[in-house]
Amino acid sequence: MAKPTPLSGFPEFLPAQRHVELEVVATLARTFELHGFANVETRAVEPLDQLLRKGDTSKEVYVLRRLHEESGKDAGIGLHFDLTVPFARYVLENAGKLEFPFRRYQIQKVWRGERPQEGRFREFTQADIDIVGRDDLPFHHDVEVARVMLEALSRLAFLPGFRLQVNNRKLIQGFYAGLGISAEGIDEVMRLVDKLDKLDPAKVRALLLDEAGVSEEQADKCLALATIRTTDDSFVDEVRALGVKDDLLDEGLDELATLVRACAPLATASVRIVADLSIARGLDYYTGTVFETRLDGFESLGSICSGGRYDALASDGRTTYPGVGISLGVSRVLVPLVQRGILTSDRSVPSVVLVALTNEDARAAADATATALRARDIPCEVAPTAAKFGKQIRHAERRGIPYVWFSSAAEDGTITHEVKDIRSGNQVAADPATWQPPHQDLRPQVVTLSTDSTTEKEIL
Amino acid sequence: MAKPTPLSGFPEFLPAQRHVELEVVATLARTFELHGFANVETRAVEPLDQLLRKGDTSKEVYVLRRLHEESGKDAGIGLHFDLTVPFARYVLENAGKLEFPFRRYQIQKVWRGERPQEGRFREFTQADIDIVGRDDLPFHHDVEVARVMLEALSRLAFLPGFRLQVNNRKLIQGFYAGLGISAEGIDEVMRLVDKLDKLDPAKVRALLLDEAGVSEEQADKCLALATIRTTDDSFVDEVRALGVKDDLLDEGLDELATLVRACAPLATASVRIVADLSIARGLDYYTGTVFETRLDGFESLGSICSGGRYDALASDGRTTYPGVGISLGVSRVLVPLVQRGILTSDRSVPSVVLVALTNEDARAAADATATALRARDIPCEVAPTAAKFGKQIRHAERRGIPYVWFSSAAEDGTITHEVKDIRSGNQVAADPATWQPPHQDLRPQVVTLSTDSTTEKEIL
Repeated sequence: MAKPTPLSGFPEFLPAQRHVELEVVATLARTFELHGFANVETRAVEPLDQLLRKGDTSKEVYVLRRLHEESGKDAGIGLHFDLTVPFARYVLENAGKLEFPFRRYQIQKVWRGERPQEGRFREFTQADIDIVGRDDLPFHHDVEVARVMLEALSRLAFLPGFRLQVNNRKLIQGFYAGLGISAEGIDEVMRLVDKLDKLDPAKVRALLLDEAGVSEEQADKCLALATIRTTDDSFVDEVRALGVKDDLLDEGLDELATLVRACAPLATASVRIVADLSIARGLDYYTGTVFETRLDGFESLGSICSGGRYDALASDGRTTYPGVGISLGVSRVLVPLVQRGILTSDRSVPSVVLVALTNEDARAAADATATALRARDIPCEVAPTAAKFGKQIRHAERRGIPYVWFSSAAEDGTITHEVKDIRSGNQVAADPATWQPPHQDLRPQVVTLSTDSTTEKEIL
Repeated sequence: MAKPTPLSGFPEFLPAQRHVELEVVATLARTFELHGFANVETRAVEPLDQLLRKGDTSKEVYVLRRLHEESGKDAGIGLHFDLTVPFARYVLENAGKLEFPFRRYQIQKVWRGERPQEGRFREFTQADIDIVGRDDLPFHHDVEVARVMLEALSRLAFLPGFRLQVNNRKLIQGFYAGLGISAEGIDEVMRLVDKLDKLDPAKVRALLLDEAGVSEEQADKCLALATIRTTDDSFVDEVRALGVKDDLLDEGLDELATLVRACAPLATASVRIVADLSIARGLDYYTGTVFETRLDGFESLGSICSGGRYDALASDGRTTYPGVGISLGVSRVLVPLVQRGILTSDRSVPSVVLVALTNEDARAAADATATALRARDIPCEVAPTAAKFGKQIRHAERRGIPYVWFSSAAEDGTITHEVKDIRSGNQVAADPATWQPPHQDLRPQVVTLSTDSTTEKEIL
């Protein structure tokens, strides 16, 4: 077979790179579990009618067909393109066996049948948390998911900083209604204002007048609302100053102010929260809180962590399940950082120690040394061949294994053990039953390489 | 939307069941890492020509098609049906960036485009370990993968016992050659002897005479070889007693004896190793050691953990990569045990503590209590509403949360904290900054329910 080449849109990692992803996933899972979120894994496929529900046929779905299906027909199932559709289906299917409010996290691959092109993933990993209620779900859960994700992001200290941008659909819709814009006009205005991240305000203003048919004063107020950004609840006064009155607006202002006040104590230099009244989440079916997140220095990636409140995450016609959730694009963040060489790990194997071999007859003794180390949770491996010690040390070096273990038997049968830190060259006597490496050597460390210098900074 | 129904062949777990799977995966991963195996995750898809290489078009593959592909053509890619094909491709694609011998583990979903029918999975999880060399790979790595998997299985104490059955293709092929069976006849004899687990020996003997064209004496010796089963290296004498001489047979006997002797010390009452000279692994491309594994009491599942040695796991025409590996069918073991109610967990959420609420105004104080507990790695959640305490306790009970935390503020503002173990009813004063639950309460526990009684046995 000729050397295979990568498939566009299906990123894969080398082992040292994959370790970064494992660390991210473990940190996310641990944080979510500390907050009582249970893990769920759904199957990779859903029936096509589920994937295209709400009549949205614009989704880029991969449809499955059995290779040996004689009729040539597809199997009526496709790969899921997000984790919300399968979760909503899982909630309905298992509603009688779940306890509500139900908190779950889900970290899985999703697929999109995109045309192959630069920067578009066709397979990627997402990490979702959602809280779903039966019939109702108190607003404090909106605060909860925001706080949990902020905590998770701040534990990922080796990533660039984040800016969590929050808004509230009730606030926007109430404001537009208070301006006298019709119910039908509100969606259109929201869609046009959402273009502010791509078009300049004068152009959006023109579109508002032409396409949404609002007045100049209405357009100016809509644009004024969308420019409000505050890191505390002072946005309330700024909105009030625009002189619009509406009950739904009041409700939205109150919810957003509560959310921002509750999240502000979690902000750090690298993880910030901002009430950004331009955020609307386009065509998605959110009904209250909305979230987007920008990665510092990688704003061109768009939002890497988004979500919000659905009044009806799922419904079987009799019972409605409201939900609030947020989804982190794990691949969306990691793949660019790993591919540019900014993130990797300091070794390609879990091993802390390579147990060297004097000769092949010493393999059983070397295995015994390794077993003693593993009994105390020290990952290690035995040299594959009894090559010259210099070659065995290079074997460790190439993998980033920090220690090499040497044993020698005296004529009376007593065995002497020494362990060498090959980074410093220090070699000391050691006992396999008690020797302990420094804590930070026990696992591979995530290493960040800045793009504009060759200095390495070890974090984690 | 009407209540969705499960898709045949795509098993899913409820949260308490999923916890069992998470424990299994974490235990496997930890064991593999202790032995220096690095994690790799490959994409879910491979080009169809890779999936069907070696001309084997019998595989049940799911082919992908973009929903919006106007030509109606499929995308030329399909979901992988095992983890060996993608790993072989990954090794070739990244050979220049990997260090050999390369140890990797991979725990992922695989898919097979089976017709829907009882007991056939169309999506399932496998856990593979392999060691791959460049040009050569010493035999001691065969011993290594067997020992690592035995150790991993014995750490899964909540599963039924296992029997790892080992054999060696060189032993079989050398024995047949020594009997005077032709090179072409050997594969046919191996294929027929492999039917001994389904057909009775007299029937297989008749097939050997009729289809493989061997003599009565040859057939009897082939059957005699296949009946040999020993838990130590005494199989060598039993084979020698059959009076067949051949160099390849000697090599096979020597390898298998070495493997059995090295694994025997790891055997326990529930995890056993046996040299079983009937094991051949059918049509697979193994060239030396072969493995199969039976689960005690679930022999009808067939082999739940199989593998062996390939002289050419991968090859690019210039360089050959020999490998040895073993693959555990995680879903194959867990799904029947979980679906029959034999395995579950004692709670459906990670939370150790439910922090109760006196009234909604006390939510910030309850959040502070929860934050203090989480800072010491104690998973917890705050009650969703300030219902009556009886209702809040039932909220915990239904999820299996063992502790409920109560706080009350005196008139002078001092807060009193108490924590109740709702299993025993014991309630004691506690400080959120120092209270620690017993270690076994920190994580959900896997619970086994025997099929023929209602007694629960907590393990792990």
